[in-house]
Amino acid sequence: MKMFNKVVIFGTGLIGGSMGFALKRKGLARQIIGFSRQKKNAELARRMGAIDRTAASLDQVQDADLVILAAPVEAIINIAPELAKRLKKGCLVIDVASTKEKIVSRLNKLIPDFVGCHPLAGSEKKGISNAQMDIFTDSICIITPVSGTGKSALKKARSLWKKLGAHILLMPAARHDRILAFTSHLPHTVAFSLIGSIPDKFLKISSGGLADTTRIAGSDEILWSQIFLSNRKNLLSSISSFQKKLAAFKSALANKNRKRLIKILAAARKKRGHLG
Amino acid sequence: MKMFNKVVIFGTGLIGGSMGFALKRKGLARQIIGFSRQKKNAELARRMGAIDRTAASLDQVQDADLVILAAPVEAIINIAPELAKRLKKGCLVIDVASTKEKIVSRLNKLIPDFVGCHPLAGSEKKGISNAQMDIFTDSICIITPVSGTGKSALKKARSLWKKLGAHILLMPAARHDRILAFTSHLPHTVAFSLIGSIPDKFLKISSGGLADTTRIAGSDEILWSQIFLSNRKNLLSSISSFQKKLAAFKSALANKNRKRLIKILAAARKKRGHLG
Repeated sequence: MKMFNKVVIFGTGLIGGSMGFALKRKGLARQIIGFSRQKKNAELARRMGAIDRTAASLDQVQDADLVILAAPVEAIINIAPELAKRLKKGCLVIDVASTKEKIVSRLNKLIPDFVGCHPLAGSEKKGISNAQMDIFTDSICIITPVSGTGKSALKKARSLWKKLGAHILLMPAARHDRILAFTSHLPHTVAFSLIGSIPDKFLKISSGGLADTTRIAGSDEILWSQIFLSNRKNLLSSISSFQKKLAAFKSALANKNRKRLIKILAAARKKRGHLG
Repeated sequence: MKMFNKVVIFGTGLIGGSMGFALKRKGLARQIIGFSRQKKNAELARRMGAIDRTAASLDQVQDADLVILAAPVEAIINIAPELAKRLKKGCLVIDVASTKEKIVSRLNKLIPDFVGCHPLAGSEKKGISNAQMDIFTDSICIITPVSGTGKSALKKARSLWKKLGAHILLMPAARHDRILAFTSHLPHTVAFSLIGSIPDKFLKISSGGLADTTRIAGSDEILWSQIFLSNRKNLLSSISSFQKKLAAFKSALANKNRKRLIKILAAARKKRGHLG
């Protein structure tokens, strides 16, 4: 018997599509239905084999036993009330969004078997054409249960991510958002601002350093504006921390303070080494 | 006949060592002598085959017909007067440092056959153990001649880089330093500051975005403090440009100005696309 009989994926993009591929390859689902605001994306996902069928209406979730919400933050929050009405008892609902506090606080009230998840497996690329079945292998998946989260739903969610090859971390949604503000949303902010500050005509006179540092500035603006706005306070304070570090560097440079400059760079290099 | 009879490389690190390998592989030098402040580095370069012999003294340059200065900016400037005294007429001298104005203004006075060069082929890795013969293939090499640069020296330098597979750009040293302040020194500054601003305990809860954005923060602090200090004014103004862009982003976020945020991100994504 498969782990899930009927799976519905909302949002057949990079993550949703990759989950479809992975569920199929691992034999975890009997049938996968895909839903996308842009019909042609779901159709492409079907032709590529990430899903078995596309869905025209929300009613498809009525007999699902797993619903995966892989749309941008705000779309997930908007769809939740209509979704909640249609679910059968015991259906596991997970999301894969990059910020968790808003989604978890809304959805856990509406859907007891909702489990907030964030697989750290995205990239600047988007869409089903970049989906891959193995992006979760050896990735980190953060799960953010609340006190009201159904025990068996949480157990099933953990088992699912484990089967997809992810290393699971459990933490409160608020802590997730505080951490990711530093380790994901700040780097995106910095990359967008960095590429924005370079005069167009200078761009090509560069090498791998600029390319790597700004790779994630190729990310989708709708998705990322929603991530930034949904984690606004945390991101504002991580930006302030970064601004202080940058100002300290700038002042050491302005004052020709070589000792201080070397100390800043050495500490940064050492810290970067811990990242692997 | 080889293009060069005797080549002396000062600094057998990533770039110096890679040049040794490339000169040998392409059959451009009969004999390559390597010189390093740390004797064991030159010795390792010899054992790895990047050079034929190590040198104990500067006198080795007396019958050289190519001298490659591949040490940090300040070491190159410091060695120049003693070097100039020993060169035979017609010996081509090139450097490979990341900033050009200071080096070119000092060395071109002392050595008419000096040609300032900057192959955009470095990385955060350092040392002979990371040297590779093909790092110049399809890279950009910026050459910064002055009015007094010997014509045949310039011609030879261009021919050398072309043979190493580089695409050559000629420009004044001042323009080089203004451009690289944006496309290389600023990204390094940002990467060092970004990793510095992230709380240690959060580091591991991250994915490829943080890793890529901070890769060049693994760069050597002595080399980079010299690069930053030797291009101080240009870098200070590129940092200011970046700070303005970041402040604009932060203010749009603080004000929940979604439209403005999307506009900033979309412009950045589009610009990043031009980088390839």
